[in-house]
Amino acid sequence: MQLTLIKLGGSLITDKDKPFTAKKAVIARLAGEIKSALRGFRGKLVIGHGSGSFGHTVAAKYKTAGGISGKRGVKGLSLTAEAAVRINRIVAEQFLKKDLPVLSFAPLSMVTAEEGRVKTIFGEQLKLALKRNLLPVVYGDVILDEKRGCCIFSAEKILGIIARQLREKYAPIRMIHCGITDGVYDGRGETIGRLDEAGFDRLSKQIKGSRSVDVTGGMAHKVEECLEMARLGVRSWIINGTRRGDLRKAILGQSVRGTVI
Amino acid sequence: MQLTLIKLGGSLITDKDKPFTAKKAVIARLAGEIKSALRGFRGKLVIGHGSGSFGHTVAAKYKTAGGISGKRGVKGLSLTAEAAVRINRIVAEQFLKKDLPVLSFAPLSMVTAEEGRVKTIFGEQLKLALKRNLLPVVYGDVILDEKRGCCIFSAEKILGIIARQLREKYAPIRMIHCGITDGVYDGRGETIGRLDEAGFDRLSKQIKGSRSVDVTGGMAHKVEECLEMARLGVRSWIINGTRRGDLRKAILGQSVRGTVI
Repeated sequence: MQLTLIKLGGSLITDKDKPFTAKKAVIARLAGEIKSALRGFRGKLVIGHGSGSFGHTVAAKYKTAGGISGKRGVKGLSLTAEAAVRINRIVAEQFLKKDLPVLSFAPLSMVTAEEGRVKTIFGEQLKLALKRNLLPVVYGDVILDEKRGCCIFSAEKILGIIARQLREKYAPIRMIHCGITDGVYDGRGETIGRLDEAGFDRLSKQIKGSRSVDVTGGMAHKVEECLEMARLGVRSWIINGTRRGDLRKAILGQSVRGTVI
Repeated sequence: MQLTLIKLGGSLITDKDKPFTAKKAVIARLAGEIKSALRGFRGKLVIGHGSGSFGHTVAAKYKTAGGISGKRGVKGLSLTAEAAVRINRIVAEQFLKKDLPVLSFAPLSMVTAEEGRVKTIFGEQLKLALKRNLLPVVYGDVILDEKRGCCIFSAEKILGIIARQLREKYAPIRMIHCGITDGVYDGRGETIGRLDEAGFDRLSKQIKGSRSVDVTGGMAHKVEECLEMARLGVRSWIINGTRRGDLRKAILGQSVRGTVI
């Protein structure tokens, strides 16, 4: 059976200029598009969302991406984790309003790292949730790291881990990234329709990073995660979540403006 | 090093007569007692709290304790999980206000069951959190079950699992249950100072169940979990969390009114 992983970008669902402000209307609309797509869809979905101006604001203030150093570092970790759950609560609430059977899974509770790389991971709960037709939701979070104390773990990363965990059970697996641009732009600001490793090397200097505070590195990070997914046979679409209806079309496999990797 | 597991009962921190109403002032006071105790304390703490009138209300409505049956069951699971996180957010917020370095771990994300019994569990994140002097917080939750779809997993149960996971690293391990009674009462309503397996058999018919809606079974359930802990060498104190200062004293090993198991 087919599995589709959907990433809702932090800058799509939160207001980058206002810390701790969610774009509830946008989240509600995206939930509605997912609900609508599910009527004619025979695969499974997993949602992942960024932390946007929630987690990133706190993480930047306390330099949480660098790990834990001293009591202030412990506090930063605690507050960043808190902020990540806070935006997740808002997303879950909007999805529940559309009667979507969401079940949020916390990366902090199920993944640990060592030097910023995944060390241990728990995935049994996710398999059971999909089997029972629930809609798992994960999110960008801070996770514990054996060496550094903690590290930032983006929604892309947790979705990537999930793709690996579920490769034996589901095929094909595809990933849809909903951001605020029409995919990846070239140096002239034009959408690149298709991108592979060689193309990315050529264009990497031209790709603009996200302008908002984003400790996970914006568009370049996203493309790198997509290229790694491509090596596993997972195809990714980077689309514009602000374009009404595009997420629904992308789930249903219809063509939309954006970049395929 | 010593490890103390603290359970804050659902009827202590929520209003049993008003669904989805937390007793914020009580939670804030208990957080203050923990903060104060930590100044003179050289062990590690893990907090667990019940779901009280949050999770239990929804779980009772949708019969979630019985597992998933049909679409309504899926919705019940989704809403019960949502409610469990909601009370956790309130607890975490009050603890953060006292500058306690809380880190919430979601049972749903780290435990699965089969026929109501634990099947798989992930505990690495917890070990790392304690190593870094964070204050882990877990809670009564709904978890996924291979056979039934889901089952209710009380705060006592997750704390019990944690005690088992951490037995190699910490000793002694003790558990403090904060409820709304002066420990376990006998048939005449008097506190039983000490209770063991034989004593519980004699008294089990006299012990009054919690009067509030509680799908995890109230006091009898609590005592059973304590007896199981006793078999592992974990001593439990059942104390009255409404008595100002008693939690602080209990953490510091001072004598307080209640039942020792």
